[in-house]
Amino acid sequence: MQNKKFQKKKSKTSSPEELIEGILKGDKIALSKAITLCESSRNQDRAQANQILKACLPHSGKAIRIGISGVPGVGKSTFIESFGRYLIDKQQKKVAVLAVDPSSEKSKGSILGDKTRMEQLSRAEKAYIRPTATGGALGGVAHSSRESIILCEAAGFDVILIETVGVGQSETEVRQMCDFFLLLMLAGAGDELQGIKRGIMEMADGLVINKADGDNVDAAKRAKRSYQNALHLFPPNANQWSPQVESCSALEHKNMDGIWTMISDHQKLLEENGYWQEQRKDQDRKWFARSLRSLIEMRLFADKSNEKLYKEMEAEVVSGKLAAFEAAEKLLPSLLKSL
Amino acid sequence: MQNKKFQKKKSKTSSPEELIEGILKGDKIALSKAITLCESSRNQDRAQANQILKACLPHSGKAIRIGISGVPGVGKSTFIESFGRYLIDKQQKKVAVLAVDPSSEKSKGSILGDKTRMEQLSRAEKAYIRPTATGGALGGVAHSSRESIILCEAAGFDVILIETVGVGQSETEVRQMCDFFLLLMLAGAGDELQGIKRGIMEMADGLVINKADGDNVDAAKRAKRSYQNALHLFPPNANQWSPQVESCSALEHKNMDGIWTMISDHQKLLEENGYWQEQRKDQDRKWFARSLRSLIEMRLFADKSNEKLYKEMEAEVVSGKLAAFEAAEKLLPSLLKSL
Repeated sequence: MQNKKFQKKKSKTSSPEELIEGILKGDKIALSKAITLCESSRNQDRAQANQILKACLPHSGKAIRIGISGVPGVGKSTFIESFGRYLIDKQQKKVAVLAVDPSSEKSKGSILGDKTRMEQLSRAEKAYIRPTATGGALGGVAHSSRESIILCEAAGFDVILIETVGVGQSETEVRQMCDFFLLLMLAGAGDELQGIKRGIMEMADGLVINKADGDNVDAAKRAKRSYQNALHLFPPNANQWSPQVESCSALEHKNMDGIWTMISDHQKLLEENGYWQEQRKDQDRKWFARSLRSLIEMRLFADKSNEKLYKEMEAEVVSGKLAAFEAAEKLLPSLLKSL
Repeated sequence: MQNKKFQKKKSKTSSPEELIEGILKGDKIALSKAITLCESSRNQDRAQANQILKACLPHSGKAIRIGISGVPGVGKSTFIESFGRYLIDKQQKKVAVLAVDPSSEKSKGSILGDKTRMEQLSRAEKAYIRPTATGGALGGVAHSSRESIILCEAAGFDVILIETVGVGQSETEVRQMCDFFLLLMLAGAGDELQGIKRGIMEMADGLVINKADGDNVDAAKRAKRSYQNALHLFPPNANQWSPQVESCSALEHKNMDGIWTMISDHQKLLEENGYWQEQRKDQDRKWFARSLRSLIEMRLFADKSNEKLYKEMEAEVVSGKLAAFEAAEKLLPSLLKSL
């Protein structure tokens, strides 16, 4: 009995109105509950999530959204802990940390120890850490992360750190929701970097060589030069920003100010030349297009037999029996029947 | 009267059966007519195109498909002319050249002089040059190019060179339909390369520094080293192929064999480790998914008022009045009415 009572208390639901009020006051519990609604695939939760998002949207958009990527072992958690504390202590910021992990769509669980990884940051009053997002049904992890950003901003967080675990499409998706994309790297040539996927380096607005401490300081300096040379061969961004290379030691809290200066310089340039708003608008357009696409595909494939038909037709294309367009034309009428 | 008669003769239509027979015999006129059908957006043409494609599919797939990209001025036409002649004269190949230019979707015309650009190649019996594809309505240029590849292969061409004009999304689309992606570059650091879009270099299976002739030979050597170093910093491809750098002079027909060796080495490796077929299957799956998506969007937006509704809803998202998902949910019922 007591156990049941406890559970009931724990899962106490709040009305959308209560959650909106809580979020706008900066209440982290209300924020967490609202994010959970956004991640849910139940229709009822979705309706509430829409209501909350609509109320929060006018209060969003003022934060800087920083995507952080890098291979496992590069020290992402330590970096976010160190950088987050710097932002709170030295820059008087409120910092929210979101993690994007497409692989969690399968397990529906958060990475073990997501909160405990960032022990000091998670205890800070001005920090909010949301364990890895689960996908829900509505367009996956990227979708709910995008909505979480809005809610965090409405709750008054002015720096949003979006961590990717570097699996699957997560970097591309995170690039599409952040203002600045930071790639953490390790000193040393080639071999250590094999875990980074192709094309990621060219997405970055800044490279940061972490673990520039102890015996590693010289190697970090060499790596910095080497990447600066490599970046020089890349074509410039349309937004006129030249990606920078910094080194740091998250462990020893070194050069966090250099990284913040780089990010602030980027923001200043883009606000001046108009690309800041341009990038946000462009992201919004793509977000909308993707949402519509996910919604259509969700409706079409809600019927499991449609998925089976799709796979059968795909096999015809792969085996060279049908050209793709004819296969699509054959498949579509069956799919549409279910709408 | 005479004029009319002449026109009638010129535009003589052939039945799908005649075109299929012609293509399989290697008749370039039949091939051209069939490609035109694939590019058409008329339902009747589309039905004939499907019939021809279906008959040609079993005879396709044996060629090597090489994507060629590079900024304007890098000498793409001269390179293709030189490389194409090498393939015909020294490797006894039959060579088809297709060009992909998304910008032509608007003008519905081919780039002026597309054929005359490659004067010698276009006169060769064993070459077929198709001027820039126009988009038609069915999923754009990438779609009809994909179908043109099938038809060229059925007509017996065993090397397909797919040229991108380097505008918009064309490189990404061409990457998705070729076995080997070759990026032409110019000697000299940084500045000259500004026209290359970010992310393109990492797509390449091979970089070729063109115009390594005259006073430019030393600069080309330096550029080669420099790009080799840069590529070393990139993560390796999953297919185990390490992108190579070659230099050449298309003007003086120098090192065409080096380039062909590079491409052949790539094919050999990928055929051995299974990635050759894997890449083709993966491309087919994506091609099918894209075809279905285009078809759905085509049906949805065939009604112009739907496009207007879409733009209105998009504006709501960009201005921050609606979150993307709610906007999509609001829009979808209206779109579906037209189906």
